[in-house]
Amino acid sequence: MRIERKEREEMEVPEGFLFSAVSCGIKEPGKPDMGLVFSNKKLTAWGVFTKNSVKAVPVILGKKFLKRGEIRGILANSGVANACTGEEGFKRAESLLGKLSRILNVSEKSILPASTGVIGEQLPVEKMSLKLEELVKGLAPEKFHSFAEAIMTTDTFPKVYFAETSEGIRILGIAKGAGMIAPNMATMLGFIFTDAEVSREFLKKFLKKLVEETFNRISVDGDTSTNDTVYMLCSNKKMVKDLKEFEKKCLEVADKLAYFIAKDGEGATKIIKIKIKGAKNKQDARKLAEAVANSPLVKTAFYGCDPNWGRIFSALGKTGIKFSPENVELYLNSVPWIKNLKLISDEKKLKEEMRKNEVELFIKLKEGRISYEFYTCDFTENYIKINANYRT
Amino acid sequence: MRIERKEREEMEVPEGFLFSAVSCGIKEPGKPDMGLVFSNKKLTAWGVFTKNSVKAVPVILGKKFLKRGEIRGILANSGVANACTGEEGFKRAESLLGKLSRILNVSEKSILPASTGVIGEQLPVEKMSLKLEELVKGLAPEKFHSFAEAIMTTDTFPKVYFAETSEGIRILGIAKGAGMIAPNMATMLGFIFTDAEVSREFLKKFLKKLVEETFNRISVDGDTSTNDTVYMLCSNKKMVKDLKEFEKKCLEVADKLAYFIAKDGEGATKIIKIKIKGAKNKQDARKLAEAVANSPLVKTAFYGCDPNWGRIFSALGKTGIKFSPENVELYLNSVPWIKNLKLISDEKKLKEEMRKNEVELFIKLKEGRISYEFYTCDFTENYIKINANYRT
Repeated sequence: MRIERKEREEMEVPEGFLFSAVSCGIKEPGKPDMGLVFSNKKLTAWGVFTKNSVKAVPVILGKKFLKRGEIRGILANSGVANACTGEEGFKRAESLLGKLSRILNVSEKSILPASTGVIGEQLPVEKMSLKLEELVKGLAPEKFHSFAEAIMTTDTFPKVYFAETSEGIRILGIAKGAGMIAPNMATMLGFIFTDAEVSREFLKKFLKKLVEETFNRISVDGDTSTNDTVYMLCSNKKMVKDLKEFEKKCLEVADKLAYFIAKDGEGATKIIKIKIKGAKNKQDARKLAEAVANSPLVKTAFYGCDPNWGRIFSALGKTGIKFSPENVELYLNSVPWIKNLKLISDEKKLKEEMRKNEVELFIKLKEGRISYEFYTCDFTENYIKINANYRT
Repeated sequence: MRIERKEREEMEVPEGFLFSAVSCGIKEPGKPDMGLVFSNKKLTAWGVFTKNSVKAVPVILGKKFLKRGEIRGILANSGVANACTGEEGFKRAESLLGKLSRILNVSEKSILPASTGVIGEQLPVEKMSLKLEELVKGLAPEKFHSFAEAIMTTDTFPKVYFAETSEGIRILGIAKGAGMIAPNMATMLGFIFTDAEVSREFLKKFLKKLVEETFNRISVDGDTSTNDTVYMLCSNKKMVKDLKEFEKKCLEVADKLAYFIAKDGEGATKIIKIKIKGAKNKQDARKLAEAVANSPLVKTAFYGCDPNWGRIFSALGKTGIKFSPENVELYLNSVPWIKNLKLISDEKKLKEEMRKNEVELFIKLKEGRISYEFYTCDFTENYIKINANYRT
């Protein structure tokens, strides 16, 4: 039997979550820019936040609300980051969240805030308040897609991914990314919703690990933001018997979102998966992968489809980590590239591999046994155009 | 009396140095790509090199030769970096330097090597050897300008600067830069020539300080290279009475070269001087300045003449250094920009200031008393174009 798209999506949404989105005129008219996730019952929730010492208002409030432990949903907006907005920024966010709580008839501080957009501008709370009733009225399980659209900034596509365990536990991931994605989840919002029943203690530990292994392994331009937030919300509808499988599926969801974010890096034409093997320890492996992933010279070479391997060696060396260049092997989509400082394959073949929109760069060292993976994207004229003209 | 340009330049060249340059076909035909500096007498010389763990052949040889202490000049080339070239790279460089030494009738290891260009390619020593006689025959004090041209890669202008102390001690600086200029003097060659008499011990200490205060305070794209080298050569013709004035003049020369390098960053349309004031300590001040200088988002905002100050705050916060955003003041060419998280001047006025091709960004904190300065440039589509197509 053929299942209609809409039905199928409804089926896959984790039980207990309702979504909604409206356009309140922060972005262009008609484009959703404020979204709500809501649950009729108390959720188990946790968050991981930016390490930037300049923290946005929603980051500071979100942390505070989570500690209190009575979470019912998320109110997210795009266009204005509510960062560097001082006391006024807090007043506005709290007034907006207060109004929403009264409409939803939930206690204050039970709706987590999340914002993304221009730093230093105040939330247009009057415009936003006018739309709160409509936002609440629209709540429905199938509206997750509109919610995903409402958090987009320079993203070119909404980032949504589903998974389900063999026990029927559902996991839904929604994210936004685009610019400033660097180690430590820059300018990204990532939300993971599941109907699993988990303890708060488990969630705290697990979410930290999940972020470390997925969202912290992507880079678009090496910058980190004031607003980065990953929230995980659990509706506790289904008991988890196979915890391993559940964890694996959650990691799959987060990994896919991270992948989408790198793929949709501002102006990017391709995603590059960097695989390091044979590093001495995890710290080295990570540093090496990040140095290559963040090098503008490597990223422009990939854009130009120029197998200029010297830039990769130079980026590896920039870390200061000692290794023998003679022992480094490079592979491009499994095609041998460099061995013993010599070109192994035809340049034409390598250029062809670089032309693909998904490229795997495998860097094999002989210093130890540690592996590491990292996503990045190429660096193009469009990145410059988008960011030179983002606000004006 | 009007002094003719050529005479003037000859007058200003420090005594004891001869320069020459030839085209041996590494770059386009007719463009100088190999240069020589030579002194008829033994020089006092020292060098500071890249911190990249992948070191080019000329870096390793240069270090070795300096230790020996019998230096008579520099052989520099552009187009090929002689990095990641293994044993063969050493053989080739040593054979070329050996031939040159015999022509010059000096002991081997007395000519310092310096290379810049593509990593992973071997020096075309046959072509180069054929031109050594011509190179030596051409030696003359006034040829410093051709020498400066011979070390250019993607530089758009040769970088030369003169200074003279009131005692008549002359200092000549020659450099190349363009891409990959980052903290720790990425892909740059910098040479300082003086006719001062100084001890080797003094020179070692002083050069380290000089590099720290000038070449290590510039950034083009945050990448560092395998070949970065600063050599300082002293012909010992003139006794230094006022050491302070001499040091000051040397720093002026190096600072100007650093300025030229940042100004000529690949694709850059403007140079940005970042001044940090009121940091807690030097380490913090440097980290904060570097974070702003290397942020692609800040650099593209300057390119787009968009006074998007949130990106500056976000870059400062990225360091993880704690400070109160409320206490940060920004000035653009002395025009007040941000105070207490509020815009102080008209956006139109700020845009006008950003449109200038020399911009000063003054960041005033209230965390302590330490100041720091750093040069960077804007980030443009042309950076991408140059680097996507550099080699091919």
